[in-house]
Amino acid sequence: MESLRAAGLEVEAVVVPPGEASKTLERAGRLYEAMLKAGLDRGSVVVGLGGGVVTDLAGFVAATYMRGIAWVAVSTSLLGQVDAGVGGKTGVDHPECKNLIGAFHQPSAVLADVTTLATLPQEELRTGLAEVVKHAVIRDAALFDTLEAEADRILARDAAVLEDVVTRNVEIKADVVMADEREGGLRRILNYGHTVGHALESLAMEADGQLGGAAVTHGRAVALGMMAEARIAQARGTAEAGLLQRQRTLLERFGLPVGLDAPPDAERCLQIMRHDKKAQSGRLRFILPQTIGAVCDTDDVTDDEIREALRCLAAGC
Amino acid sequence: MESLRAAGLEVEAVVVPPGEASKTLERAGRLYEAMLKAGLDRGSVVVGLGGGVVTDLAGFVAATYMRGIAWVAVSTSLLGQVDAGVGGKTGVDHPECKNLIGAFHQPSAVLADVTTLATLPQEELRTGLAEVVKHAVIRDAALFDTLEAEADRILARDAAVLEDVVTRNVEIKADVVMADEREGGLRRILNYGHTVGHALESLAMEADGQLGGAAVTHGRAVALGMMAEARIAQARGTAEAGLLQRQRTLLERFGLPVGLDAPPDAERCLQIMRHDKKAQSGRLRFILPQTIGAVCDTDDVTDDEIREALRCLAAGC
Repeated sequence: MESLRAAGLEVEAVVVPPGEASKTLERAGRLYEAMLKAGLDRGSVVVGLGGGVVTDLAGFVAATYMRGIAWVAVSTSLLGQVDAGVGGKTGVDHPECKNLIGAFHQPSAVLADVTTLATLPQEELRTGLAEVVKHAVIRDAALFDTLEAEADRILARDAAVLEDVVTRNVEIKADVVMADEREGGLRRILNYGHTVGHALESLAMEADGQLGGAAVTHGRAVALGMMAEARIAQARGTAEAGLLQRQRTLLERFGLPVGLDAPPDAERCLQIMRHDKKAQSGRLRFILPQTIGAVCDTDDVTDDEIREALRCLAAGC
Repeated sequence: MESLRAAGLEVEAVVVPPGEASKTLERAGRLYEAMLKAGLDRGSVVVGLGGGVVTDLAGFVAATYMRGIAWVAVSTSLLGQVDAGVGGKTGVDHPECKNLIGAFHQPSAVLADVTTLATLPQEELRTGLAEVVKHAVIRDAALFDTLEAEADRILARDAAVLEDVVTRNVEIKADVVMADEREGGLRRILNYGHTVGHALESLAMEADGQLGGAAVTHGRAVALGMMAEARIAQARGTAEAGLLQRQRTLLERFGLPVGLDAPPDAERCLQIMRHDKKAQSGRLRFILPQTIGAVCDTDDVTDDEIREALRCLAAGC
């Protein structure tokens, strides 16, 4: 705010309580109110400064205030810097469905200052790392090598390594999104780990809020989702030898879960997946890894293959 | 619904109470709920069947459900057919600002069946006719001639004449919108009559809800707004001789107000206009008619010119 004011701009701050509970239509309503009161017009700019919740929400109110004004994403979490803040997906949650209400609205700029990550809680760093591993598996073998080689320095928040990692992740995400903004084709590869992951996340929220021995986070769910989905590819024989193991080892080094004590309720998982918004006309799509760095997009995975992969999360197979 | 079902489609109806009071974020929230319950996915289509309130609302929830699904506008009011249903502006109201929350989201199709106008209340027909006169003044002298020649048959809801008039109005609106979807330039000409009109409408709502001797409607406000704005052009000497009088005569034949018993509160009007979302950085823009069929876009109208034009609404000058 100081630097913007020093540049001669008028700035008003609106603080949003932390956590997913702020991503609601009601909260958006209060923001419109504050924006109107502050006199924002079509030439004004919304700056979302915070984690993924804040940038999703800021982007959504920018997308829908006076039919769309400019916004800038300034992500202060690793998840925001490598994922949520890039790509133009904005939105709020419906009580029964995350991100149900939203719009595509590209930010005018995305700013990522890795020094903000120095104070990020460890669990939130891990959530971002799950998406970082995902980007490497779907698109960039060299990044995967870097993650393996630099895992300790990443966990120690080494700014130089983080800057390199964040930069490469933004490039991957931006490349995919520029080729396919609306998720008709290529963008779907970003869903790797998310079909099963979202179901596990929902299931954990319905139960005790625990997943893999700790409070559920999006990152924990995605890590387990990637394990299950890589397991499907391995069982089909379409994944290169060793892929599942390399992914497991890297996720473990980052402190992410790779298995469960008890198998999840497979029938409930299947039900949730079918209700997931990515299921077009009831058909489940999966992104399956072929090699580290390359995936395929398929819609012929059977319910039995999914059941077996979920069983393996507990059996360790 | 019958014809869609006969074509093999699944159809669910959600009824929205009539009137502007339904254009709220809360109502949108209930629609998302109904859409989720009905199982709408990204391949589903929203059909807005009704007047401008319904198509604005239907378009907005379509724009923001799962970050945008397809929609079709089926307008059953003249205002909807010639204006609200065409152009992709969708949105809901904020208690203090109409259409504050919205998005640009073009419908996949716009259907206008003029036989639905047979049962439209006379005052709502007039509201549509105010926009029809506006289109003629800003863009189409031949349409203005037709309106003068066919006024009686239009008021008698002659289907053949209405079909011709609606078609030509949709063409005008669509042409302007295709050239400038986001209102950076040409689209602004559609605001003719609306800068003063919106202020008069707000002022009437703050007071007794009456405007020009009857309950305020958008059409009555726009008719008076066009009179005030044409008066500014005439006083500047930039409008052709007789323009103001021809516009006055046609509006009167359609039963629209062209003057007020007492002058509106000019200072309050100026205040409202400056708060209007069309005022970029406080500078008021006006669309001023030059001839029937051509306008210019200006931002150098002084407050005194506006005061004088408002005074003339009561003085009849």
